[in-house]
Amino acid sequence: MTDVILAGIGQTEVGEHWGIALRDLALTAIRQAQADSGGLEPGALFVGNMLAPNLSNQAHLGVLLADHCGLRGIEAVTVEAAGASGGAALRQGYLAIKSGLVDVALVVGVEKFTDQVGAGVDAAVATTSDSDFEAVQGLTATGQAALLMRRYLHEFHVPAGGLAGFPLVAHANGAGNPNAMFRKAIKPEVYSKAEMLSDPVNLFDAAPHADGAAAVILTRADLLPKEFSHPLIKIAASTVSTDTLALHDRHDPLGFWAARESVEAALHKAGIALEQVNFFEYHDAFSLYAALSLEAAGFAARGEGWKLAEDGSIALKGRIPCATLGGLKARGFPGGATGVYQAVEAALQLRGVAGSCQVAGATFGLIQSLGGPASTSVVHILEKIG
Amino acid sequence: MTDVILAGIGQTEVGEHWGIALRDLALTAIRQAQADSGGLEPGALFVGNMLAPNLSNQAHLGVLLADHCGLRGIEAVTVEAAGASGGAALRQGYLAIKSGLVDVALVVGVEKFTDQVGAGVDAAVATTSDSDFEAVQGLTATGQAALLMRRYLHEFHVPAGGLAGFPLVAHANGAGNPNAMFRKAIKPEVYSKAEMLSDPVNLFDAAPHADGAAAVILTRADLLPKEFSHPLIKIAASTVSTDTLALHDRHDPLGFWAARESVEAALHKAGIALEQVNFFEYHDAFSLYAALSLEAAGFAARGEGWKLAEDGSIALKGRIPCATLGGLKARGFPGGATGVYQAVEAALQLRGVAGSCQVAGATFGLIQSLGGPASTSVVHILEKIG
Repeated sequence: MTDVILAGIGQTEVGEHWGIALRDLALTAIRQAQADSGGLEPGALFVGNMLAPNLSNQAHLGVLLADHCGLRGIEAVTVEAAGASGGAALRQGYLAIKSGLVDVALVVGVEKFTDQVGAGVDAAVATTSDSDFEAVQGLTATGQAALLMRRYLHEFHVPAGGLAGFPLVAHANGAGNPNAMFRKAIKPEVYSKAEMLSDPVNLFDAAPHADGAAAVILTRADLLPKEFSHPLIKIAASTVSTDTLALHDRHDPLGFWAARESVEAALHKAGIALEQVNFFEYHDAFSLYAALSLEAAGFAARGEGWKLAEDGSIALKGRIPCATLGGLKARGFPGGATGVYQAVEAALQLRGVAGSCQVAGATFGLIQSLGGPASTSVVHILEKIG
Repeated sequence: MTDVILAGIGQTEVGEHWGIALRDLALTAIRQAQADSGGLEPGALFVGNMLAPNLSNQAHLGVLLADHCGLRGIEAVTVEAAGASGGAALRQGYLAIKSGLVDVALVVGVEKFTDQVGAGVDAAVATTSDSDFEAVQGLTATGQAALLMRRYLHEFHVPAGGLAGFPLVAHANGAGNPNAMFRKAIKPEVYSKAEMLSDPVNLFDAAPHADGAAAVILTRADLLPKEFSHPLIKIAASTVSTDTLALHDRHDPLGFWAARESVEAALHKAGIALEQVNFFEYHDAFSLYAALSLEAAGFAARGEGWKLAEDGSIALKGRIPCATLGGLKARGFPGGATGVYQAVEAALQLRGVAGSCQVAGATFGLIQSLGGPASTSVVHILEKIG
């Protein structure tokens, strides 16, 4: 079957962009991606966005962004799957190229949290949980993570501060990413003194909501322009799995079933073993989600994911580097843009241009975009093929 | 290339379902569609929804509905393009089958307007226009339609009540649709005495917001179960075009450019002439949009679309029957479900089971799902092939 080539990448800095409109964030990322691709002209636009209808009073982003970004007329649509919206948009772009009906697909993830402040943001994010049975009781996303983290610490006898390694690695890596929201390594005592958000989730266990946009261009190899000069990267696998939306409907809340299923299916499709994966961009919206994602993917046994952050395994030179450009924790968590940032960052790694964040000799990158506590899991494997 | 077969259909009654949750509306339509298909098991779910994040505080519908409808684990995502969300979800399902990566795709459109009342609904709908430049000024969807309608009446010297034919035909047809919100023909004097919503758009020039869910199952012909007993229907074409989001950015606001482009492209892909289309399910959110859609598609010259409602052309036995089961005006306008209702109704026509709404001997059905004033236009041509 046709290979889907990741032919162009673009991104804005992640942060608090009070003065930049959502559409202009997208414009910056899209222009970069088009230029990076050697000038490919997209025939379809897939927008990954999580909360603009609530945070920015703006739905119908497909046509808005197509028009604003100089692509008036083309097919355009918004794809939403909570925090996995970016990954889901990438998946739709991939299907479009695979269908043979779209030659060049543009995928942009964009989010603007600073259009709201305070409780408005929590309420908006809570719309991605089960509104009738969870949000209505006052359960927030951080509250969900706290319930899970408390259970994890208890069930697996994790010592106090046992998850600190995740934000420490993320911040260490973010220091080398010029687009990261936080570019400064932190010390263990900063973590241990951090204020509590929802016990036991502290400030450094939760990734910061942020503004940002990232874009990628997908096409077939035979359509690459002569000007295209980057190493060739294909999407070797694209999978989506879902679980229950509500936590209380899970038989095994610490299992992250959809995260496991989607990774296993992706490895099968890519025809590789887990050991061949050179780095893993997980969805560390919370420190615990990083631990559970490592376990679900098979990098650690049940209850032992946290140890990989303690023993250096997930560091840039470790067994399985994670959050290599800062992850959600240090690069920042721009909602539905996040999954597209992962694709951009994986491309930087596979092209070998990740600077001080570079993972040496990377051929296969695994990226995973989660919606909620792995209620939705979208996985892509990117492969350097030339 | 692989034909995409429309293998199953389901729908709820359209109306005010105060006592039924959004997820249960979807469940009813999905179960019907699965049974109708002979028991096909979907591998992916595409949800068309317009406003649940605002109206129902519920995003992340993909996983919510997959789990609630007995499909836990499958790929699931929400697709949004304002009023065209249903058509856009159908398009994603079509691309998924065409890609060869999904065997059976379930497309459900669902909307629940009665989770909000009054100004909350207007504000939610306004998020589908350009929030920063239109909604913020107080422009509503009905206000947009009123601006366009006033211009149309003026520019083309349309007599008072010249657009009355559209709701009259819709209501006449809706009387024969057991799932329509309004099942009663209306008389011309009812239209002429109707209260004004936003002059010159009166109560009968605007389709009623409503609750409802519709579902279709798509697959390849070789995967149809032995139990499948319906006439065979394929999707002969699937296209999407966009225009500007904001009306003030249009060179020719009465042109409905995206509506024209998408129909022309669809006819080309289906390999048929406009004259071969046996019926046209247009997006009559407003009477004027029906007139402009007829003109854009090529059924009428510029400024003369309204005459087709006056002279019987769009009636069931006319030259080009429209809104054959009531259209948005009489079947009702359940937001992002609407485009999927059109597909279900087209299937009923092509199967020859549309009862008193039947268009005799229909082979090709054209359905068009609009977001805003044809800011997004999604077109499908359904063809009876056996």
